[in-house]
Amino acid sequence: MASISSITIRHARREDVDAIVRMLADDPLGSARERLEDPLPPSYFRAFEALENASHIQLVVAQDDDGAVIGCLQLCILPGLSSQGASRGLIEDVRVAAHCRSRGVGERIVQWAIAEARANGCKLVELLTHNTRVDAQRFYARLGFQPSHVGMTLRF
Amino acid sequence: MASISSITIRHARREDVDAIVRMLADDPLGSARERLEDPLPPSYFRAFEALENASHIQLVVAQDDDGAVIGCLQLCILPGLSSQGASRGLIEDVRVAAHCRSRGVGERIVQWAIAEARANGCKLVELLTHNTRVDAQRFYARLGFQPSHVGMTLRF
Repeated sequence: MASISSITIRHARREDVDAIVRMLADDPLGSARERLEDPLPPSYFRAFEALENASHIQLVVAQDDDGAVIGCLQLCILPGLSSQGASRGLIEDVRVAAHCRSRGVGERIVQWAIAEARANGCKLVELLTHNTRVDAQRFYARLGFQPSHVGMTLRF
Repeated sequence: MASISSITIRHARREDVDAIVRMLADDPLGSARERLEDPLPPSYFRAFEALENASHIQLVVAQDDDGAVIGCLQLCILPGLSSQGASRGLIEDVRVAAHCRSRGVGERIVQWAIAEARANGCKLVELLTHNTRVDAQRFYARLGFQPSHVGMTLRF
């Protein structure tokens, strides 16, 4: 498939929450974790409001030229003392709509996040990707990421 | 060595920056990244000010009963849409002063972060630990963390 040339990256709006949750749920890991109900459970909208009030976090979507939301990513800029007081960018919740995969959408949105992190003075961008997501790991390696760390999680 | 029973966990103050940077630098990876000069480069204090203004991040220190700083940890509470809008806690920059290791300081400070994340409604705590830090990985596994993810980084 051809790459999608006219992608717009923009901040997510409340009316995008449905499309974002749909992408989060359309995934072997996500399908067990999300509740894709109509209407969506209010916890999603409470989280969206928390994100709107979090100036250090940007939840963005990729939009095609028909205005459809086809990708998403969350970037958090984290100050910290280590590495001589360098900020870090943390990338989370990267998703591309199933029918748009392998067409450059993920690369566009991750490259946006890398550029945004650099523009905010970060010296490092980091992310955790599940051990089973080997395609994602190859994708990030192609963009220059190193599998330098073990990502450890504790779920309550 | 006996565990250190009377540890206080408290928010870091500007006068702790020196002790924290000393711990960050006293480490095979950190020694190459930090600049342990007297006085410290101003970038560390600029980062400390950014942390003080970041209500979502807590930089804490462990203090022994003589008032000495013997450990540190940074906890960030991150809202997000995934997992039904659950917040996540991100733990970073965990260090224990060399002369106090294997005495329960790290466990106390990480358990503090886990409890704090839970109290803030997080359903998950996550961290990245360098592939070479096998002792740290064993330590976190003992506290219930799973090595479920690959931690990927891109340095500029």
